[in-house]
Amino acid sequence: MRDVAIIGVGLTKCGEIWEKSLRDLYVEAALGAIKDSGVDHVDSMYVGCMSSGLFVGQEHLGALMADYLGQCPIPATRVESACASGGTAMRMGALDVASGQSDVVLVGGVEKMTDVGGDEATYALATAADQEWEGFNGATFPGLYAMMAIAHMHQYGTTSEQLAAVAVKNHDNGSRNPNAQFPAKISVDAVLNSVMVADPLHILDCSPITDGAAAVILCPADRAKELTKKTPIRILGVGHASDSIALHSRKNLAVLDGVARAADLAYTAAGKGPKDIDVCEVHDCFTIAEIMATEALGFFEQGKGGPGVEAGETSPGGRIPVNPSGGLKSKGHPVGATGVAQVIEIVEQLRGEAGERQVKNARVGMTQNMGGTGASSVVHILEAM
Amino acid sequence: MRDVAIIGVGLTKCGEIWEKSLRDLYVEAALGAIKDSGVDHVDSMYVGCMSSGLFVGQEHLGALMADYLGQCPIPATRVESACASGGTAMRMGALDVASGQSDVVLVGGVEKMTDVGGDEATYALATAADQEWEGFNGATFPGLYAMMAIAHMHQYGTTSEQLAAVAVKNHDNGSRNPNAQFPAKISVDAVLNSVMVADPLHILDCSPITDGAAAVILCPADRAKELTKKTPIRILGVGHASDSIALHSRKNLAVLDGVARAADLAYTAAGKGPKDIDVCEVHDCFTIAEIMATEALGFFEQGKGGPGVEAGETSPGGRIPVNPSGGLKSKGHPVGATGVAQVIEIVEQLRGEAGERQVKNARVGMTQNMGGTGASSVVHILEAM
Repeated sequence: MRDVAIIGVGLTKCGEIWEKSLRDLYVEAALGAIKDSGVDHVDSMYVGCMSSGLFVGQEHLGALMADYLGQCPIPATRVESACASGGTAMRMGALDVASGQSDVVLVGGVEKMTDVGGDEATYALATAADQEWEGFNGATFPGLYAMMAIAHMHQYGTTSEQLAAVAVKNHDNGSRNPNAQFPAKISVDAVLNSVMVADPLHILDCSPITDGAAAVILCPADRAKELTKKTPIRILGVGHASDSIALHSRKNLAVLDGVARAADLAYTAAGKGPKDIDVCEVHDCFTIAEIMATEALGFFEQGKGGPGVEAGETSPGGRIPVNPSGGLKSKGHPVGATGVAQVIEIVEQLRGEAGERQVKNARVGMTQNMGGTGASSVVHILEAM
Repeated sequence: MRDVAIIGVGLTKCGEIWEKSLRDLYVEAALGAIKDSGVDHVDSMYVGCMSSGLFVGQEHLGALMADYLGQCPIPATRVESACASGGTAMRMGALDVASGQSDVVLVGGVEKMTDVGGDEATYALATAADQEWEGFNGATFPGLYAMMAIAHMHQYGTTSEQLAAVAVKNHDNGSRNPNAQFPAKISVDAVLNSVMVADPLHILDCSPITDGAAAVILCPADRAKELTKKTPIRILGVGHASDSIALHSRKNLAVLDGVARAADLAYTAAGKGPKDIDVCEVHDCFTIAEIMATEALGFFEQGKGGPGVEAGETSPGGRIPVNPSGGLKSKGHPVGATGVAQVIEIVEQLRGEAGERQVKNARVGMTQNMGGTGASSVVHILEAM
């Protein structure tokens, strides 16, 4: 198969964007990516979105977005893997190019979450869990991740202060991101004194409800420099894995097996290992998720992620900077867009265009996107060409 | 890219299947396909489903179905294109094999529609239309297809009796299908005297609300005879196209441009034309849809589909037998499953395993699956190996 490059990116502001609809957001991000790349056409497109049916009463997003982007009659496909919808759409788009079926592919992710109330949003998000065994019995995501946090604390001694350190770091990073939903810096005390949502997770351990969209343009790597004037970014490796959807089926609540599996696949495809990664965006839907992800990706031994973040190893200038964008926690988490937005942050880092957030000498970057409590995991490894 | 073959099929009964859940249906169809093929593993899987979020409060179907099928940690992806979700999942699965990324791929479609009431089901289905311009203003699918029917009648003189002839033929075909939801034979008078839903469409012009699932196993064509003892079916060509989602943007309400485009792509890829097709399954969500589809696929000149069905040209033994399964009208329309179920009927026809429904000397078959009022169209051309 052909190597694939990312040659354009477009990202909307993340937040409560009441003046723009689902389609407005997607089209804004898509036009941004098309303009950034300089391409004059698109052969095929993918739309990552978790639950536009429940959030805004609209399915059939492939055709809808192709229509509103003026791209009919190209093939347009929506991909859904809960909060990993964006990452999964990236993988499908890359396969489309790698196979030779298409040359220029638009991959976008979008979610419009603030048109419903908090209860409805929580219900919609809970459809990413096992409804028959978890959702119908009252479990929602803060509760599920709280159980994972409790298990991690019990097995490895992870502390609430270490969880808080994730939020503090990510808000500090997000304060340098003009697209961030919550760019305010916060302190460990602020996290620990914020309202408890599901013990041990406080509200400041949780990512927010967000509207937003993100899009990229993909093409064959060997045509990238002809098509764009910017630094193309090669997709070195992709990993996608599934794990049990319900927590009760996991061997160990404190380990993200699916993430580790997806990372193994991506590392193998890329011929890289954890030490080769200069910068990483991980799926910090809750603070514990970042700690567990950094372990599953091999940046820390199992159980050492908490001390690692507390020691600054994942801060800018640390051994492995994690979530320079501010992550889901500060930048925001428009669920279907997140996997694509993560890729955009890494593209900007590898292009050297990340401004105040720039990680020095970043040549190889990684994204880790997951759905549910890790039942779907997608990992991408990217390199500047 | 590699040629792809279908080597196993599995289909549930279609109907109001209250004793089985969404996941039960998918797993039943998937196990049927695995058993039929004889394969001992699956490398990757796709789930076509339109709106499990609105129908049963469950998204994240890729991981869910991989889990309940005992297939974790393989990659599992849900694909949504409204009522073309199954056809789009087929296309993604075929690309996965054709590209060389996977060798044995499971593609399944599923919908569980009868767990909600009729009003809720109508709302959920309407999310396949343009919600901002159609749905929010009260349009649902019977009304949208009624407008298309009126346009077709006005431009070409199509009659209510011709629409009814589609339903009569398909129920006659469905009477020979043990999986059909409504296998009863009906008459033209019965259709014309049934309750009017949206003039000129009577209730017997409309496909039903259905639970059901369908699944196939794909592999590289050059390995098909080694993997299965049954007759493998080669995917000769696939076409996928988008069209404007709202009817108001169409040049002509009486023409399915997206279907014609998808058919052109599939014919070109297959090196075939309409005269080469021995049997076809089309997307008869309403009787007018079958007439318009048979025109867009090139079986009839534009406007001649109505006289064609009335003259028996699409009946068993006619020039081009259409919907020998009974179609969506009689077999049932579990929307996310439909595109895969259509492929299964053609596989059984090309294998010579269609029993009482067998079309004689069927060597090349076609499926036409669409979402909304034709905004997403997927066409497959298949041939016995």
